[in-house]
Amino acid sequence: MPVNLPPLSANDLLPIAGVELGWAEAGIKKPNRKDVLVMRLAEGTAVAGVFTENRFCAAPVTLSKQHLASAPIRALVVNTGCANAGTGEEGLNNAQKTCAAVASELGLSADNVLPFSTGVILEQLPMDRLLAGIPSAVANLKEANWYDAAFAIMTTDIAPKAMSRQVTIAGKTISITGIAKGAGMIQPNMATMLGYLATDAAIEQSVLAGLTKRLADESFNCITVDGDTSTNDSFIVMATGKAGNAPLVAGEDLDVLYAALKEVAQYLAKAIVRDGEGATKFMTIQVNGGKTHDECKAVGYAIGNSPLVKTAFFASDPNLGRILAAVGYAPRQCDSLKDLDTNTIRVYLGDVLVAEHGGRAASYVEEAGQKVMNEAEITIRIELGRGDVNATVWACDFSYDYVKINADYRS
Amino acid sequence: MPVNLPPLSANDLLPIAGVELGWAEAGIKKPNRKDVLVMRLAEGTAVAGVFTENRFCAAPVTLSKQHLASAPIRALVVNTGCANAGTGEEGLNNAQKTCAAVASELGLSADNVLPFSTGVILEQLPMDRLLAGIPSAVANLKEANWYDAAFAIMTTDIAPKAMSRQVTIAGKTISITGIAKGAGMIQPNMATMLGYLATDAAIEQSVLAGLTKRLADESFNCITVDGDTSTNDSFIVMATGKAGNAPLVAGEDLDVLYAALKEVAQYLAKAIVRDGEGATKFMTIQVNGGKTHDECKAVGYAIGNSPLVKTAFFASDPNLGRILAAVGYAPRQCDSLKDLDTNTIRVYLGDVLVAEHGGRAASYVEEAGQKVMNEAEITIRIELGRGDVNATVWACDFSYDYVKINADYRS
Repeated sequence: MPVNLPPLSANDLLPIAGVELGWAEAGIKKPNRKDVLVMRLAEGTAVAGVFTENRFCAAPVTLSKQHLASAPIRALVVNTGCANAGTGEEGLNNAQKTCAAVASELGLSADNVLPFSTGVILEQLPMDRLLAGIPSAVANLKEANWYDAAFAIMTTDIAPKAMSRQVTIAGKTISITGIAKGAGMIQPNMATMLGYLATDAAIEQSVLAGLTKRLADESFNCITVDGDTSTNDSFIVMATGKAGNAPLVAGEDLDVLYAALKEVAQYLAKAIVRDGEGATKFMTIQVNGGKTHDECKAVGYAIGNSPLVKTAFFASDPNLGRILAAVGYAPRQCDSLKDLDTNTIRVYLGDVLVAEHGGRAASYVEEAGQKVMNEAEITIRIELGRGDVNATVWACDFSYDYVKINADYRS
Repeated sequence: MPVNLPPLSANDLLPIAGVELGWAEAGIKKPNRKDVLVMRLAEGTAVAGVFTENRFCAAPVTLSKQHLASAPIRALVVNTGCANAGTGEEGLNNAQKTCAAVASELGLSADNVLPFSTGVILEQLPMDRLLAGIPSAVANLKEANWYDAAFAIMTTDIAPKAMSRQVTIAGKTISITGIAKGAGMIQPNMATMLGYLATDAAIEQSVLAGLTKRLADESFNCITVDGDTSTNDSFIVMATGKAGNAPLVAGEDLDVLYAALKEVAQYLAKAIVRDGEGATKFMTIQVNGGKTHDECKAVGYAIGNSPLVKTAFFASDPNLGRILAAVGYAPRQCDSLKDLDTNTIRVYLGDVLVAEHGGRAASYVEEAGQKVMNEAEITIRIELGRGDVNATVWACDFSYDYVKINADYRS
């Protein structure tokens, strides 16, 4: 079960003026589950996105990047059950046909539509079933449909992931709602599996792109379930402007909005880890005192991706030498760490000092470590002692269920 | 059970003139198992080693590097059950005391002795038990003890790993025997967990260091079990010169010897993967047509370390899109791959062409992929189509037993 992920109710989610959502059960992989989502955006909505850096990026990722660069975006279409990745020319044609079908239903042109897919790689989309599902998804477009939308994008996720927030800017109430899905092949690189954030704030299109990249870097780009970067990661931010504020360009008002967007994005990113495949523990890996952000992240990911660290956490076993080993090989991933001096490093489990001066801390007793390890939510803090830059990585453990889920996924 | 690892008998292993081995049951972690090994080397033996690049390298690694640089090496001492890593000043003192104890028994000075440890990190050596074991290990020093030595260095290994070979050089019969141990925290970086290769050939000391590095790069530095680089990896080559050949410096004779040493080193490296923790499949990942060796290795390790690829192989599920995804994110690890073009890449499973032109090959049928996946030993071949450099990585799958072994290891 997900680790400390609060249950979601439909009432938790605010509609966003200018964003309507409709879903269908198209039977793409299995019958009787929501597997197609269409979102219609009001005219004038600013849209920005960041996408996977996986070179085998999916056809819909390629097409979404093209459409974002060329035309105003007025709709999104998402399917689960098939990633449309590793599908070559035919996959691109299918993504294009999907956009055209949505556009035709909504009176738009195909390049006003962003397509997204998630599911098995190296298989073609079942176009007959997908195209048959689109009219019914369009037929139930409603601003109140965020709750169902959060379910419609799930694959191996156990629980839906969604959050809303409100802030007041220049006397206007601004609403934000976001949804995301995980749950495996998760170490986003520039984006996450699928994440959508909408606000009724007005934001200059030229500002939105940079803001979206920064949001991704501070949320979805800080998580890992299994170290695998998906072919389909996409994170989209939409600002409809329906709240009536003057378009935000910079300054304090934008900062207030950014903080609220970040709160939602981080909640969703952490929710993906809490519901990571087979997860039983949620680990916050805080790496402080580095010279660069990249080297702090490299240390955090070395710990968060180590199968030995992850299985020890699954077992609640304070076998903490495995954390030292992971820190010690982080220079494999990051050149600036080649001069890493282990004598300046301190390792904390929760508030317990575990290691310093290259060895176990004199004050450390295993009972104190065991007490922290028994918790479901654990902070590992690494003080590198070589600079003043910090970074955080969120990760989960490796359990029997991770193996079970991924040995069974296609069956 | 190990994957296609032939059973070992004592008769398989040749003694090496000038190398005596003795073991003890010192009860370092558990009673009644061989856990201390002493090797005595004849005067004039050339010795070279490569060691882990993990920054939290173990105390014995630090000391072994110092001793190799300063004095002729006349003995090695290995203990299992405790890694003496993450042990600070006290750990260094303990490694020093261990060398001194062996030296005293053998009439040497401490810096003639190389120390090695493997086991749990962040715990001090039980010096009383270790020191008590050394005299009995020295008491049974024999050239015929390689078989017992292979057992004495095991930790979570199921089976011992050892091999011998003979070659004739300038009319002299040259013998080679090697032993190694795995089985987790295995992605050696410059060396492996513990590997020892001895020959009675005479090789110039100045030549041996380069030869050892090259041997490691072509064997132990090509494997992964879980992507974790140990704090204790050490690979040592010893040449006693007792075969009576003229010392080898270069040329065809050295090439013949190198080929035989490489055969033994590769056998041992692959044996570690065959007996990797929980392994049920042995994967040879052949990456061809790259621009550099590093980029081929990066692609090979991306595949060999992907938890999603490894669990699919455990399940014998030809969910081969996961291989594409891993190739696609390999540029995360290797800058020269930033311009990787997926259109030129071909992916083979055994002899079956699975993917080309960015998608599934027209000729591919799942039955053919399934047939290969059902085997215990599988070759994945990636043709990058961008250069003429090749590299190989050997890896195993991820099973329930990997989680079980590593969730239980300390108990």
